[in-house]
This record gives sequence, structure tokens and C-alpha cells, in this order.
Amino acid sequence: MGGTMTLEPVAESRCFEGRVARYRHRSEVLDCEMTSGIYLPPQAERRPVPVLYWLSGLTCTDENFMHKAGAQRVAAELGMAIVCPDTSPRGTDLPGEHESYDLGSGAGFYVNATQAPWSAHYRMYDYVVEELPAVVESRLPIGPARAISGHSMGGHGALICALREPRRYLSVSAFSPVVNPTEVPWGQKAFSHYLGDDPADWREWDACALIRERGSALPLRVEQGEADGFLGEQLQPERLAEACREAGVTLDLRERPGYDHSYYFIATFIDHHLRYHARALGIG
Amino acid sequence: MGGTMTLEPVAESRCFEGRVARYRHRSEVLDCEMTSGIYLPPQAERRPVPVLYWLSGLTCTDENFMHKAGAQRVAAELGMAIVCPDTSPRGTDLPGEHESYDLGSGAGFYVNATQAPWSAHYRMYDYVVEELPAVVESRLPIGPARAISGHSMGGHGALICALREPRRYLSVSAFSPVVNPTEVPWGQKAFSHYLGDDPADWREWDACALIRERGSALPLRVEQGEADGFLGEQLQPERLAEACREAGVTLDLRERPGYDHSYYFIATFIDHHLRYHARALGIG
Repeated sequence: MGGTMTLEPVAESRCFEGRVARYRHRSEVLDCEMTSGIYLPPQAERRPVPVLYWLSGLTCTDENFMHKAGAQRVAAELGMAIVCPDTSPRGTDLPGEHESYDLGSGAGFYVNATQAPWSAHYRMYDYVVEELPAVVESRLPIGPARAISGHSMGGHGALICALREPRRYLSVSAFSPVVNPTEVPWGQKAFSHYLGDDPADWREWDACALIRERGSALPLRVEQGEADGFLGEQLQPERLAEACREAGVTLDLRERPGYDHSYYFIATFIDHHLRYHARALGIG
Repeated sequence: MGGTMTLEPVAESRCFEGRVARYRHRSEVLDCEMTSGIYLPPQAERRPVPVLYWLSGLTCTDENFMHKAGAQRVAAELGMAIVCPDTSPRGTDLPGEHESYDLGSGAGFYVNATQAPWSAHYRMYDYVVEELPAVVESRLPIGPARAISGHSMGGHGALICALREPRRYLSVSAFSPVVNPTEVPWGQKAFSHYLGDDPADWREWDACALIRERGSALPLRVEQGEADGFLGEQLQPERLAEACREAGVTLDLRERPGYDHSYYFIATFIDHHLRYHARALGIG
């Protein structure tokens, strides 16, 4: 996969002696054009560098993390690339795709849809786990040592990617993740449309269920703001803590008084996560 | 001024143990409601802290710098507040106000307009130099030690504020400033509308002209990307260097190969500027 793909830069800015670029490419998996944000640290001018994949949350694009997280400073220091996929297929026009913030465009939920009309495009799991890494790692001085993290819907994405594909990632973390989507409104709405009405088919895309069924050799690190307005209804990190306890999985859950769901929270703690991933990637 | 004013928080997020907030208040000077972005470092919970005023560029609001510059980390370390005014009056609806990115809304140019219809609202100089500081310094644990900086149109604003009011600011810096607006297209367009057709009336709002006429006891620090697409036509920092040389004003002009006009450039070097201002403010 990725052998015939081109990766076309559509914008590029120097940043901390490396470069932030947006690359456009045709996704075969999603059957549309996609744009990804990529930070290459200065070390990438001389050799391939390890990479952190960052999965963003609802309504985001490939740009939010690059603009708002302030991660490039430490990524440049460590010699770590950062790849930010978009959060859904784009340029398609499916029925209902653009009507709500938590379904369709901007809300791919990092699953492989099985239900029409979504299944023709909404295969974000295969895209972020296989196709995009194959493209960027063959075209840019990136990889193959990979870490993964994300925020909210993207925190859910990071967890399920690492739990389902533990050999593809050396470390995983999440900010404010949706840990148990099969049991909360965001997940139930998205999964019923993308995966159908049988909740048994949802479990392979739910971090808590995956942990109970498969365990995890990788430890999990989660950052959660205690003033997050989505905490009680959508996030419920105590469910993850309980699943990890029952399955004997190591969870480092850091609850931060006063912090909310915004990028100001992410910016405050992203440096800790980058250094955590750097150690797993062998550059810390 | 500011004695009867209220400052209403409309959003607040914890950030690096301090807080980013947007405050709405009625401006008498601009005759409209305005929103300002303010970062209060953790030290402000115990005592008033020195402040950096940041003036943003064309098309920006009070939010761009807070979202994209990554300045809160070092501001929290130093104990420095940051105040980001909006870039023009808002909520008015003057003829032609919303038709182009470089005139009217988002493009106040930090001058006091003398020409109808602009003069009823577009008095951004008095707003950022007097009214806004009076409001925030009386309502929040901020000031009175002040520094000023800004980007592009806001770099022009920072320079003219400090050159016209050298006793109000302990230090000044600018990123990619419009140093000689009377001689470049952005400035000529805006000044002809706001200040009238006689270029003699524009000179008091032009950093190069002010330096030649008044000199400056304050040194100037300017950061400029050499890959900035506006460099040759709108910015021309060599004009500032020449004016400073002729007037015996100290200029530290740092030209950065490969960097463009974006916030990725600002984010890369903002820490240097905050530490520079901190020394002048007595906290570095």
C-alpha cells in the first residue's frame, strides 16, 4: 500500500528550525483526497526520525494540533516527527454528512464503517493505522518507530489503535479520551450509524472492551482535566481505570484540577507526553 | 478613564497553572463592545504582575496570539501577564468596513482616525494606549509595568505606541512589523481612508518618521523572517535600520533565514522576546 501514492506539499513553514507542512494525497482507503499536517524536526534533514501520530477530536482538521498545541519546540529538541491526520474523509457529500458536529465530516471516530452510505469512505481506522503511515514513511524521513496519542475522539482513536495493533506502536497516550464509546452518547450515535444497530459489533472499537478482552502489554497514559465539561457524560475515565484494574493493565491516569477540554489544557501538558513517547521511541 | 467600566469574562481556561480568559467590555473610546484576550500567570493570584501588550496583525482577533503563539508557558514561568486587544472596533457597520481584509474590521492599524465615517469608532491608538490599560489595570492584578510587542500591522502598532509614549512602556519589540506605512501599500490604503489624503498627516503614525523626528531612548528589537512573502513590498525592515542609524537609535534586528510571516515564526521566537521584556520589566 502507498506504493503509487504521491504526497503533495500544499503549504510549508519553518518552525523551530524544522518545518510544518500540509501534504495532500489521494487516499485509496477513503476514496477521496486528504490533507495531513506533518512536523519534521531539524534532525530529519540528516536521517529518518521516530514519529508521533496525533489523532484530533471532533470538528478538528489536520491543523488544530499544529496551530494550538505548541508541540514543535520539544519535538525539535527531541528529534521527533509529528503526523496529524484529518478527522474524517473530506470532499464527499453523503446524506447527513455535514449536518451535525458529532457525525460525518470531522467525526470519523477512527473506525471502519460497515454501513451504507458510510462504508464507501469512512474507514479511518485503516487509513490512520496502515495507509497514511505507509505513505508518509515511504516519502518522508519518518519512522518506522511509532508512538500514538490524541484528544477526545482522537484519544479514543489512539487507545484503540494501540490496543488493536500493539506491535505497530511503541507507546500510547491520550488527552481527555472517550474511553468507553459503546456506553456514552457520542459513541452510541456514531457507532450506530457507522457500524449498525447491534452493539456487539461495536465492542472491537471500544477501549474498555478491548482491554477486558485482550489486555495490553503496553502501558496507557491518560491526561484528564477535572473541569472538563464532557467529563461526566462522554469521558468517564473511571471506566478505563476499572477496566485496567480488572485486566491488570498499567494505567497512568493524571487528573488535573481546574483544566478543561480545550487546547490550553493540551498545550500545558503536551511536553510531558512528548518526552514520555521519546523514551519509548529511543530518543528520550 | 475606565472608572465606570466593567470587564465581563466570557470564557476562561486554565493554562500552565494560570488562566487564559476573554473579557468583554464596553469601550467609550471606540463606542462599541470589545473583547480582549488576557493571560494571567499563576503569580497573579498573589500580587499584581507586569504586563506585555500584544498587538495582532491584519484579520486577527483577540484570540490568534493566545491560540497560536505558545507564549503562556514562559509567561507562567516569568510571572508576566499578556493582554491581547482585538485589531479593530467590532459590531459597527460602516460603509465598506467589511469588504477588504486590509481596511476596516480586523485592520484598525492602531491609529486615531480623523475622517468620516471612521473617526466615530476607529480610534485604536487611544484604545490600546490608554483605555484598555486603564480598564484591565484597575480590574485585574496587572501592571503598571508595561511592555509592548506585536506582529505585522501590530508590529507597526507596537513601535508607534512605544515611540510616541516612551514613558508608558519599559520595552518594545516587534515581529515582521510594517515599519514605514506611509510608503507601502497597506499603510497608504489604510491611512488615506482613516487620516485623509494629505501624507503630512500620516507621519505621526509611521515608525520610521517618528524615529527621524523624535529619536528613541528605548532600544528597538525586531524579528524578521527572510522568507516572509510580504518582506519586499510591505515590510522593508532595511528602512527601519536606516532610520535608526541616522537617528542614533539602538536597533536589534534579527533576520531569520527560511522563516515566513506565520505564527509558526512567532512561536519559534516568542520565548526570546518574553525573556527580553521580562528583563526590562524587572522579572527576568
